[in-house]
Amino acid sequence: MTISQRRDRLRERLAESGIDAMLVSDLVNVRYLSGFTGSNAALLVKVDDETPVLATDGRYRTQAGQQAPDAEIVIERACGPHLAGRAAADGVRRLGFESHVVTVDAFSALTKAAGERTELVRAAGTVEALREVKDAGEVALLRLACEAADAALRDLVDRDGLRAGRSEKEVARELEWLMLEHGADGPSFETIVAAGPNSAIPHHRPTDAALAAGDFVKIDFGALVSGYHSDMTRTFVLAPIADWQHEIYALVSAAQKAGREALAPGVACKDVDAASRQVIADAGYVENFTHGLGHGVGLQIHEAPGISGASVGTLLAGSAVTVEPGVYLPDRGGVRIEDTLVVGNDTPDLLTRFPKELAIL
Amino acid sequence: MTISQRRDRLRERLAESGIDAMLVSDLVNVRYLSGFTGSNAALLVKVDDETPVLATDGRYRTQAGQQAPDAEIVIERACGPHLAGRAAADGVRRLGFESHVVTVDAFSALTKAAGERTELVRAAGTVEALREVKDAGEVALLRLACEAADAALRDLVDRDGLRAGRSEKEVARELEWLMLEHGADGPSFETIVAAGPNSAIPHHRPTDAALAAGDFVKIDFGALVSGYHSDMTRTFVLAPIADWQHEIYALVSAAQKAGREALAPGVACKDVDAASRQVIADAGYVENFTHGLGHGVGLQIHEAPGISGASVGTLLAGSAVTVEPGVYLPDRGGVRIEDTLVVGNDTPDLLTRFPKELAIL
Repeated sequence: MTISQRRDRLRERLAESGIDAMLVSDLVNVRYLSGFTGSNAALLVKVDDETPVLATDGRYRTQAGQQAPDAEIVIERACGPHLAGRAAADGVRRLGFESHVVTVDAFSALTKAAGERTELVRAAGTVEALREVKDAGEVALLRLACEAADAALRDLVDRDGLRAGRSEKEVARELEWLMLEHGADGPSFETIVAAGPNSAIPHHRPTDAALAAGDFVKIDFGALVSGYHSDMTRTFVLAPIADWQHEIYALVSAAQKAGREALAPGVACKDVDAASRQVIADAGYVENFTHGLGHGVGLQIHEAPGISGASVGTLLAGSAVTVEPGVYLPDRGGVRIEDTLVVGNDTPDLLTRFPKELAIL
Repeated sequence: MTISQRRDRLRERLAESGIDAMLVSDLVNVRYLSGFTGSNAALLVKVDDETPVLATDGRYRTQAGQQAPDAEIVIERACGPHLAGRAAADGVRRLGFESHVVTVDAFSALTKAAGERTELVRAAGTVEALREVKDAGEVALLRLACEAADAALRDLVDRDGLRAGRSEKEVARELEWLMLEHGADGPSFETIVAAGPNSAIPHHRPTDAALAAGDFVKIDFGALVSGYHSDMTRTFVLAPIADWQHEIYALVSAAQKAGREALAPGVACKDVDAASRQVIADAGYVENFTHGLGHGVGLQIHEAPGISGASVGTLLAGSAVTVEPGVYLPDRGGVRIEDTLVVGNDTPDLLTRFPKELAIL
């Protein structure tokens, strides 16, 4: 699917909702619909016009022309209000706006610019809903991102990078470097390396703490390739391993498998969460699994759909999601195992291929 | 100044504005006022209560207790609405909120949670205004960040890292690695390495393009240390140098010096911009300086005060700002020279110490 076909889909959705045009303020959505990656922009997509209007400021004049050759480019620092005024001047009556992104103050400016004859209509999540189903080009980029992460972790283990005495920070830094060597543009989020008791902290930031014998070493990381994010967690053990570690590793492994196997189009997202969580609950550790099961991933590290007990949606074929249960025992250690997968009509497409069997290093 | 003293200053400001409590939604502001660095949080600061209430979700239970030991911690995923409800229950009549951060949809949820007896009052920029003046601990961290960047660029040049044939991406990657070696937690933003004609693009992303003889090589980068961002640009020339390159380098250098010399407490920010821009205008290149002169820097890479022709504020002693004029000649090349400095009562404190004399490599 080309970028102009993405806009066609948006225009169809808008027409169905009785909206004449959409003011896109979220920069990731602007990128998705135009190709432009600058840090100040907005996009106006009108139902009856194939050419969108991209507003950005003078810093990006050259870049905007290169990245969004089929858009009309307007150089203007106050992108949103300018496009709201433009929509009004073009006779747009109902102008959709991203009420989940636009701030209260920015909304005041849009209202003023739109004037009295153009109504601003909440259209939260409209573009995100389109983004939920990845097209072939997007899946290809996600696959490259996941491959870069797989290869980096493989290298790290092969070169004995997870040895006692190294600090969490050193390990994180080397892993990030290895991802670059394998073609990543950067890490897709702040790499988590959590050793020993720190592995019980779900979102731990790497410290100078040294890896030690008997530690769980939990590594949650990903690569960024052309704007697409991979996300994977693996948990290792530095020998010797204790019985409780065997137990919770096997438990999380079983829960993760149950979650993966529940992924199918039409399944309620909360039921995927429940399928995995039940395994952990049955073993008596439900209090130690303190977060949702997963999330969509793409141009953002967290995007639609959410997969938790509170999720209301259903899975769609072509969604890229993570499955990442964990069990955390405060002051002792924790395990999380996470894959990125694309929901398919038969089995999901596993993008993160690094082995998940317990590895005692 | 301790973190609790920062809250004391906020409480004074709120009292002056007739606001009973403030709901802080911006995560950087939450960090500034509590020490907590998680990715989902809100903070309630009441004028008549020294103990703030920090809301975050279950992932951060342990971390919140460690980072914000003097706050009351509430575990709740919908942080903002929960604290709005809490404020209402505690009898807060006028509750300040961050109208420049809170989205239209989030505001609806806050309004509902606050109920009829608690009025939500716009308090945009209140915390950012406090952050504009850095305390001694903040300046120390900014200095460390700037030193890491200085040392990395020194190493890069010393090891002949800026030689013809290397790609922009390779240079950017090595520079980022060197910053880590010098104690940075990471780059403070996406490193810009722009060679030859690419140097005419103010915010160029590094490509596979190779550095070549006769190129300008513009490098805009910074280090992140404990949440604080450095920001520096240097432009080199790979021999041989042409006359037009001599000319615009000297011009930007003079404009940058004029900007630095204009920094003083009480000076209008737009006058600092004008002092530097005039130098470029006098030489006939005003159309080639397409962005503002500078910006505040601290917990964010761009924060108050802005320094451009559109700025309305005046400089304060203790503000950390950049001064970064540029001249860009499309399809030929461009020069930007940028420092980070702290405004002082006499001369500003120059944090980025890497030499600014023309270096022909």
